Amino acid sequence: MITVHEAETIILDQYVGFGTEYVHFEAAMGRVLAEDILCDRELPPYDRVTMDGIALKFDGFNHGLRNFAIRGSQAAGDLPLEIFDEGQCIEIMTGAALPASTDTVIRYEDIKIENGVAAIDDINVKKGQNVHYKGRDRKQNDIVAKAGNLIDSSVISIAATVGKAQLLVKKNPKVIIVSTGDELVDVNEQPTAYQVRRSNSYTIKAALEQFQIHPDLLHMPDDQQIIETKLASCLETHDVIILSGGVSMGKYDYLPAALKKLEVTELFHKVKQRPGKPFWFGKNEAGKLIFAFPGNPVSAFLCLHRYFVPWLELSLGLLTSKKVFAILGEDVQFTAPLTYFMQVKTETNEAGHLIAYPAQGNGSGDLANLLDTNAFMELPAESTNFIKGTVYRIWPYKRIL
Amino acid sequence: MITVHEAETIILDQYVGFGTEYVHFEAAMGRVLAEDILCDRELPPYDRVTMDGIALKFDGFNHGLRNFAIRGSQAAGDLPLEIFDEGQCIEIMTGAALPASTDTVIRYEDIKIENGVAAIDDINVKKGQNVHYKGRDRKQNDIVAKAGNLIDSSVISIAATVGKAQLLVKKNPKVIIVSTGDELVDVNEQPTAYQVRRSNSYTIKAALEQFQIHPDLLHMPDDQQIIETKLASCLETHDVIILSGGVSMGKYDYLPAALKKLEVTELFHKVKQRPGKPFWFGKNEAGKLIFAFPGNPVSAFLCLHRYFVPWLELSLGLLTSKKVFAILGEDVQFTAPLTYFMQVKTETNEAGHLIAYPAQGNGSGDLANLLDTNAFMELPAESTNFIKGTVYRIWPYKRIL
Repeated sequence: MITVHEAETIILDQYVGFGTEYVHFEAAMGRVLAEDILCDRELPPYDRVTMDGIALKFDGFNHGLRNFAIRGSQAAGDLPLEIFDEGQCIEIMTGAALPASTDTVIRYEDIKIENGVAAIDDINVKKGQNVHYKGRDRKQNDIVAKAGNLIDSSVISIAATVGKAQLLVKKNPKVIIVSTGDELVDVNEQPTAYQVRRSNSYTIKAALEQFQIHPDLLHMPDDQQIIETKLASCLETHDVIILSGGVSMGKYDYLPAALKKLEVTELFHKVKQRPGKPFWFGKNEAGKLIFAFPGNPVSAFLCLHRYFVPWLELSLGLLTSKKVFAILGEDVQFTAPLTYFMQVKTETNEAGHLIAYPAQGNGSGDLANLLDTNAFMELPAESTNFIKGTVYRIWPYKRIL
Repeated sequence: MITVHEAETIILDQYVGFGTEYVHFEAAMGRVLAEDILCDRELPPYDRVTMDGIALKFDGFNHGLRNFAIRGSQAAGDLPLEIFDEGQCIEIMTGAALPASTDTVIRYEDIKIENGVAAIDDINVKKGQNVHYKGRDRKQNDIVAKAGNLIDSSVISIAATVGKAQLLVKKNPKVIIVSTGDELVDVNEQPTAYQVRRSNSYTIKAALEQFQIHPDLLHMPDDQQIIETKLASCLETHDVIILSGGVSMGKYDYLPAALKKLEVTELFHKVKQRPGKPFWFGKNEAGKLIFAFPGNPVSAFLCLHRYFVPWLELSLGLLTSKKVFAILGEDVQFTAPLTYFMQVKTETNEAGHLIAYPAQGNGSGDLANLLDTNAFMELPAESTNFIKGTVYRIWPYKRIL
């Protein structure tokens, strides 16, 4: 049996790229950017007026002038008008390009307009005020969004601004989630007293959809021949097979034999952790990966978030993943010599501390606990007493703040 | 001009429901649950074996027996077998229903099987071990997920487990995002030197999609008649109109006049905040709401997250929204008598503290800053010096951990 760290290392060593593709920027949310986005021109592209009012030359104001003849009115999008002496001004709207003959904008609130003349109130005026100068934010060809960024609404905003209607993004792996076991029936079926509904596949699918992966689902009966044939076909059509259940020591677990026959190499089986100890991981010659999670719902959920997601983020070249730490909110004892992934509910208190409260759980089987919690806290195998106030790493499985 | 708190109160007073609808549970991610999900039967539904091995009666072990005749083999999903005396056992697989005549499971790792007899190693055995007892997690008709929960992968898991293929969810409001301004061109057009591309609508749309709202987009030219006609039509077809730009003091801002003519009542105009001061909010007799955000991209982003999202969450009856606080990571000065919504990048340090670092920004115009930040920190109007280490509320606009 290997440690959590060893399992993580073996899995992350198997990172691969799946290529790139163009998608329309409106359909790119949640994907990983595969190219740098450059400014097509400076930002702002012109000296941009930020208040409705009048544009004038500061020198005139500085020389004591307070009344300015309005030369004309310029809306956003218009070709700029010009003034021809310090006593003139242009009535101008937010978003318009500042006329080159002016340098300062005074807002409507600080002037009175009568008979084509704008009279300035007794106010302080700073040269250059109410103008967002050309190129102040970014120069042409500056990188505004780097390859490796997760595409969120701010990347969409940038793409729209610089006119990138098509974005090059990382292709996602083709994933199939395979369940086995004659005790499992589908969600719309009525189980007998000794059956349960198939929930793991849907849980994993829903979790992967947050990463814009839309996996296929397959259920196989407990039949050696069917399992071999179907797994062989999955290895052809998909990059990753996620199994849940069926790789323990039971005599009806046909998966280990089938995987062996299909020349899938076991890279590890069993990890010193709870939940999720019977986790199995392997790959075949073609580099297809098999994540065989335990059948227990919470165990599968842990393995997905602790191992599959980091592997996925590494494979997609995502830049933004980072370690998150939280403060244990109460004393916990855990005596088994295993890394304990404890379900916690985290919140920031009014001191800005991220506190993790353990779920009142019934062990790894209680999937209903997943509802009220949002992360696993990783408690190291070397200790047995975990004291309130100590900081440990957490693995969020929901938006936790 | 009203305060941030006053603006918030006026907006939240306008919360409304939009009804409910059924959706298939696989399409329900991100929606708000509108019914309690009950257990259709106990969880687990039977005494569930959690290890592959043998099931026996603890009394036999307790009476000194160590060799047990195997009566048969029972897989998950099978009708339970039974033993007829303490010297017998059933070979049994994970997920199977524990036979009523047994009470304890010993895993394969701790036994040797030869000639139909299982011999137990020298180990400690606890009565009831390796069994997840019927009803231990939940009783029949227990509520496992409450109305008002955001549907995430754990709710999907619960729904699948209890056989709820159709989920009753809150209907989302019909939203249209309307842009105006002749200076704006579409993303795939080449702007002149005095034009910019229309990015706000796409940014707001992308942000709303995270809430499973798929808004319509509409652009209107600066033409009083067209604006009136189109706005009138939007008020018929949509619950909420989000405007960006066009409600300031400029003489080419036709929106205020059009809204007045269409009998939309102004509930406020201008909030003591930066960015986002020119924010306008109103509604008509039919209860249709108009959120008119400023045209500046960062201002619009702030108003969306600070006002629209809380209104939406309240209107949908979402239970899980909560206040988030972070620790200011460096000293900040802000002298204007306005609430300052500062763009920050938050991270938890290794002490589990959530620290917010101010963006090195160029003011509200620098939308490129949105890329590197993940929240607005709300700095109160009453202060001007904000000291490193002080805690303030933040408004996340991305997954911040």
